[in-house]
Amino acid sequence: MSESKIYRVDAAAINRWAQACAMQAGASAQIAADIARYLVAGDLLGFRTHGLLRLRYNLNCLESGQSKPAGEPRVLKQRAATQLWDADLLPGLHTMPKAIAAAIDMARECGTGTVIMRRTQHVAALAVYLEQATDAGMLVQLMAATPAQQAVAPFGAKSAWFSPNPLAIGVPTTSSPVLFDISLSMTAAGKVRTAIAEQRDLPYAALITAAGDYTCDPTTFLAEPPSVLAPLGGEQLGYKGTGLNLFSEFWTLALSQYGRHQAAGDGDANTVWVQVIDPDAFGDALEFRRQSQAIVDGMLATTSIDAAKPVRVPGSGALAARERQLNGGVEYTPAVWKQLQWCAEHCQQPLPEPI
Amino acid sequence: MSESKIYRVDAAAINRWAQACAMQAGASAQIAADIARYLVAGDLLGFRTHGLLRLRYNLNCLESGQSKPAGEPRVLKQRAATQLWDADLLPGLHTMPKAIAAAIDMARECGTGTVIMRRTQHVAALAVYLEQATDAGMLVQLMAATPAQQAVAPFGAKSAWFSPNPLAIGVPTTSSPVLFDISLSMTAAGKVRTAIAEQRDLPYAALITAAGDYTCDPTTFLAEPPSVLAPLGGEQLGYKGTGLNLFSEFWTLALSQYGRHQAAGDGDANTVWVQVIDPDAFGDALEFRRQSQAIVDGMLATTSIDAAKPVRVPGSGALAARERQLNGGVEYTPAVWKQLQWCAEHCQQPLPEPI
Repeated sequence: MSESKIYRVDAAAINRWAQACAMQAGASAQIAADIARYLVAGDLLGFRTHGLLRLRYNLNCLESGQSKPAGEPRVLKQRAATQLWDADLLPGLHTMPKAIAAAIDMARECGTGTVIMRRTQHVAALAVYLEQATDAGMLVQLMAATPAQQAVAPFGAKSAWFSPNPLAIGVPTTSSPVLFDISLSMTAAGKVRTAIAEQRDLPYAALITAAGDYTCDPTTFLAEPPSVLAPLGGEQLGYKGTGLNLFSEFWTLALSQYGRHQAAGDGDANTVWVQVIDPDAFGDALEFRRQSQAIVDGMLATTSIDAAKPVRVPGSGALAARERQLNGGVEYTPAVWKQLQWCAEHCQQPLPEPI
Repeated sequence: MSESKIYRVDAAAINRWAQACAMQAGASAQIAADIARYLVAGDLLGFRTHGLLRLRYNLNCLESGQSKPAGEPRVLKQRAATQLWDADLLPGLHTMPKAIAAAIDMARECGTGTVIMRRTQHVAALAVYLEQATDAGMLVQLMAATPAQQAVAPFGAKSAWFSPNPLAIGVPTTSSPVLFDISLSMTAAGKVRTAIAEQRDLPYAALITAAGDYTCDPTTFLAEPPSVLAPLGGEQLGYKGTGLNLFSEFWTLALSQYGRHQAAGDGDANTVWVQVIDPDAFGDALEFRRQSQAIVDGMLATTSIDAAKPVRVPGSGALAARERQLNGGVEYTPAVWKQLQWCAEHCQQPLPEPI
């Protein structure tokens, strides 16, 4: 894509605009602020499939009643270090920070704090919530599953059982936090849709057709019957990705006691595992940061295969993208900009002028 | 390998023999019993690189003082749901069940229970400890790292930083428990050594040579400089395996505040993350089992690519291998049997007669 085709807008301005759109769609001021903040945060960190590209979807959810415009998640059951929440279809962009805050409080008290939250609407990129914990000096692990979705095959299968399940961790160091956010499949549905839109093949065979063949062709994802996402590990080591998907789904769907058989009508509503760990419970908080930094430094000191491609720490690219965009404007491709224009028109909230 | 070349011995008899050997090497009766029990458990579940093949190593550790023959782990710091232990180089085969028991107690109280244990000697296969939790109706997640070892490259590197780090989960269902135990690299060092001994190539390119080439040749692992293990995900998706290795090492080495720079002389001593979850803290214990069973059943109901290879649940092969060997005798190859004969002679404890 040529440089000239990128729209750049001031981060604060696009944030205010997105909040106004969400309020226009019925969200309370706080929920609208969270929707705007965490979608823009996704764009800033470079998770563009989970940024404002998904504003239109969130507005539709608010307007159709698929996501609730106001309210509070309910605590269904709790012990000293754990809580089960039902989010009553409130947007994940609003409930996730609340869940992390509750987990931080429990971790301070008990060493770890865990919130399992079911029936929360679109959580977007897990990466955007990690710094809430790392800024408090804590480690955080997040997993999400979508009980009404099935897109990922177990190892050896050509039909899907799992949803595309992300896993993320955030860890403070003495420098920038480590922010790691992956799907447990070979690729994510958003990346397949982007490849379709950009009319290019996937960089590797991450899909399995209904005939059972691994393929790079993203259009098979729209075929009938559709191709499915291969588990991490692929044709040879997919049993590892399958076990990791089970890890995710037992820790979310099974523990929340809200499985696929109950959630058929739930659309994209997620069940999320949020666990925060207070390093101070195991030692000294500053010494923890030195230790995590030593792990990062040791990793960076390995010899790269290609001298032109140094080894990178997870999250470093995302933090650099944020720095660049906070200074030079949040970057949108024409395809995303078109979606934002739809929202602007729909909500009668004119888009901020590109820089 | 031909059928005639397998030695089969009664499980109880080989267990008693291994305990006698460990006592001969100086272990207390309880520690010797645990060494025997959990190494034989590895053989029974088919984790043969972590079974009695490693008895000789454990005897050597006891005799050289690398592992302690008696004593108790010390609790260094604790909160309601967390404990940091120093195992003072006691065998992991003895300390792991203690750590899981402590984590179960905390989980009953707080919802989750976590023990991080540093400086414990050989833990063998994490899979053998999972049922202690699942038998109590609990979920368990284990991760281990070895601070004095470096064998796994981060993504994009041709030299190692991480140790070969296993991750395991155990989950109760209404039928057999799910027992999942993998390394976070493309293969494990034990599998490479087995391939070298059996003079065959690895089934896929899981090693990276010092020149930076992916290879199936296991003998490169003995070259100078040696090849290193590729992270899960390999050449295309190895950033995912790298992040998972970081997850393991932050959650073990960094949280225990005992990193590579402090552990150079520790040999194979491990740092382990043990977390147990009481499903009753989030809902009803029986309903949890129904939910986890529903996940397993749904996975099994997918369509396999090869009709002759049905989709399998992690642990099902291991449990079948145990059933078979409990009935027909524990199976040892001539190579492993030779190691057992060495132990028998060294400890003056005659091996039980094969069946």
